[in-house]
Amino acid sequence: MDHMLRRQIEKIVPLTDSEFDHVLSFFVKKKYRKHQFVIQQGDPVNYEYFVVSGLLKSYILDESGKMYIMQFAMEDWWFSDYTAYLNGAVANSFADCLEDSELLGITKENKDKLCREMHKIEHFFRVKSNYGYVALQRRIFSLLCNDTQKKYNELFELYPSLFQRVPKALLAAYIGVSRETLSRLSISSGRKTQED
Amino acid sequence: MDHMLRRQIEKIVPLTDSEFDHVLSFFVKKKYRKHQFVIQQGDPVNYEYFVVSGLLKSYILDESGKMYIMQFAMEDWWFSDYTAYLNGAVANSFADCLEDSELLGITKENKDKLCREMHKIEHFFRVKSNYGYVALQRRIFSLLCNDTQKKYNELFELYPSLFQRVPKALLAAYIGVSRETLSRLSISSGRKTQED
Repeated sequence: MDHMLRRQIEKIVPLTDSEFDHVLSFFVKKKYRKHQFVIQQGDPVNYEYFVVSGLLKSYILDESGKMYIMQFAMEDWWFSDYTAYLNGAVANSFADCLEDSELLGITKENKDKLCREMHKIEHFFRVKSNYGYVALQRRIFSLLCNDTQKKYNELFELYPSLFQRVPKALLAAYIGVSRETLSRLSISSGRKTQED
Repeated sequence: MDHMLRRQIEKIVPLTDSEFDHVLSFFVKKKYRKHQFVIQQGDPVNYEYFVVSGLLKSYILDESGKMYIMQFAMEDWWFSDYTAYLNGAVANSFADCLEDSELLGITKENKDKLCREMHKIEHFFRVKSNYGYVALQRRIFSLLCNDTQKKYNELFELYPSLFQRVPKALLAAYIGVSRETLSRLSISSGRKTQED
């Protein structure tokens, strides 16, 4: 299970076996079952997570209990409640598992220490953070400009595999529309999504 | 004008005079007049910019010419069309000056070289990128969850000085509402914004 992280890092910087073992020693392995919570609103957020296998959703609930999905996270993706993680605050969001999931978690202290020790790992994380920034910018533009059909198409183009694994109600919560609206779209475009 | 960049870097990592001179040698100084374009859709994006003085807006136009504002950038802020800048592509967005502006620009090649040479500058940029990521996450939540009044209040709490410097129509384009809607809000909350 560890090679997936190595493959991702080595797309950006090369690592020897012993270097990768050193990197990996800064992470803890965690296993969660479907429906289990990894991050809970009001709790400290001790880890940033790399998804080795499985699928999760990260979201907030408003006062009325309505869910807004920040992101899905599947194999090879990173997630956390970054505001809390970076500032040592408690979570404003939730993250729970849509499938059984294996994660690698790294504390902020360990990440900072690893980055101090290994310049190339600091480089790796800077590059990943830049990619993440660009992905969020794209999402903001999509939320501002696109109608529902375009948001749906964009999500499908970017992450086609999500549509096989994520219930329709959650795709709707990601796009910010009702499930009924999304159903009409997915039918009209002939794409089949998973029913929960 | 150079000390503003140094102050920002030194909030995260200390620099000697000669180190800062070295950092600064990787940047080019640029001056723009009010209404001048810094980034134009379809053009290459050669620089990431640090704002030494002035105020700019970064935005896209949809097919009908409607404007959607990605961000404002004032003193001490960074901006670019990051998708284009990082991938060597042409801009999808525009950036122009709301006030006369002095910028420091750094090419991707120079930024990568500087980060390779000076580990602590790579650290600085990683930390800044993390902060930027968190700010964008906050904006996504705001776009997904908040009604117009809440978006307006949040923008005001985060960046009160914008309300003195940015025309009301542009604040409306940032929040994603009509100018008329924003006018009702700003009147009802007793806040005075700039008229263009």
